[in-house]
Amino acid sequence: PRLHESLEERRSSSKHPIATRLFELMMAKKSNLCVAADLTSLDEVIKLAESIGPKIVVLKIHVDILEDFSLAKMKQLRKVAKAHEFLIMEDRKFADIANTVQQQFHGGVYKISEWADLITAHPLAGPEMITHLFGDSSSDSRRTCGCVLILEMSTKNALTSQDYSKEAAKWGLIASDIVAGFVGQSPPDADFSGWIQFTPGVNSASKSGDSKGQQYCSPAEAVLERGADIIIVGRGLIKSSDVVATAENYRSEGWTALTKRITNP
Amino acid sequence: PRLHESLEERRSSSKHPIATRLFELMMAKKSNLCVAADLTSLDEVIKLAESIGPKIVVLKIHVDILEDFSLAKMKQLRKVAKAHEFLIMEDRKFADIANTVQQQFHGGVYKISEWADLITAHPLAGPEMITHLFGDSSSDSRRTCGCVLILEMSTKNALTSQDYSKEAAKWGLIASDIVAGFVGQSPPDADFSGWIQFTPGVNSASKSGDSKGQQYCSPAEAVLERGADIIIVGRGLIKSSDVVATAENYRSEGWTALTKRITNP
Repeated sequence: PRLHESLEERRSSSKHPIATRLFELMMAKKSNLCVAADLTSLDEVIKLAESIGPKIVVLKIHVDILEDFSLAKMKQLRKVAKAHEFLIMEDRKFADIANTVQQQFHGGVYKISEWADLITAHPLAGPEMITHLFGDSSSDSRRTCGCVLILEMSTKNALTSQDYSKEAAKWGLIASDIVAGFVGQSPPDADFSGWIQFTPGVNSASKSGDSKGQQYCSPAEAVLERGADIIIVGRGLIKSSDVVATAENYRSEGWTALTKRITNP
Repeated sequence: PRLHESLEERRSSSKHPIATRLFELMMAKKSNLCVAADLTSLDEVIKLAESIGPKIVVLKIHVDILEDFSLAKMKQLRKVAKAHEFLIMEDRKFADIANTVQQQFHGGVYKISEWADLITAHPLAGPEMITHLFGDSSSDSRRTCGCVLILEMSTKNALTSQDYSKEAAKWGLIASDIVAGFVGQSPPDADFSGWIQFTPGVNSASKSGDSKGQQYCSPAEAVLERGADIIIVGRGLIKSSDVVATAENYRSEGWTALTKRITNP
């Protein structure tokens, strides 16, 4: 049902405020584009966000590759996100026991919980890691941040087997007040129309991937064949000479594919 | 063979300089104790390391929960590690594609490659993530840092199944110039006597675990029943009122168990 339902219908079945917000942004901006801003300078990330902000619904970053990180600069990025209406996803891939993850999420130098709308997490450590991710039930982060559960990875010979993804998806459903969506290369058996599927490794120019195990697919393939709601484009965009034009191409290709999937079931 | 071989024999079969070094430290200090210094202040970590340094062979930290992190302080910790002869393990649990992990390892604010002797990584993303972990074959880090591959987690319903661990152990064997050891709750089928098994969740006082899915076992159980070479003790030590006496107890219990396992096969 998720694949062919309208975004309006799906928004109303969403159980997470951040997923609800993301459905709204997608409809308002006619975009299902997430850009992976894998740059090593936060100043550069802010510059990129200012230019492509109108085209995207999510900006995905890795806070721990930024050489010039500061909370002040992160506030600046939040201002850009507010002005251009997109969400910030910290692709931290939390993968530890709950007691540690809580500290990594709230504490340290990065204070991820203060600025991230979405974070990614591996379900590896078990269901209690998911339910305790943001802290106890009184934690504000349960409303301000959504977990995107990594059910499948896009690399060669990844260990995210069918059994693995299936089990994790079940836990995600139980914790649907915490889990706003998932990263995957296909719809899980235990799918839920209020969830949002993020698919990375999208690149129009390259079919082959990188030399370190990453594999690519096109926006249409990601949306029509693999079930992506949001396409994640990284090196295919940030290494292009005209990022705004490239962002517009990906937005248009991605949105066309999504519209086609919904209207021609 | 690993379980009952002497540390001297195992040192000579090691294919990684950091594993070799760790075998030497274990023999010299009669210790197989790793303390998980899960504190939120690096000043406090340094203080703890100065007091328990003589008892331990590895100090495990989470750099991203430290509120007062600086590279200068990390250099101070390295001095303590040199003076008291223990290794520093950054329990980062790298769990992304190789292209990202390389940047997380070398870059950002933390510059983990500049100060970590050991890092932990999940094999999730596939074998190429392991071989490309530290950069290309010319990277200095291949000699200065060892990967500890997480084959099993200690939490309830963890997704590290037998198939998962088995496949990952095979990859680890192929990349034995990168992988110095593994985190596990049991010896893998594809075991290797030059590898070092790290077992977390060791706590003498509590059998029950925490309230968020973590499960505990005693030092003797970890070494004799689960195959641990190195026991990882966290809250059982850092929350005790006399950390030095507690460290000595864990060192003695752990070492007695390891000696017993080797001499009474």
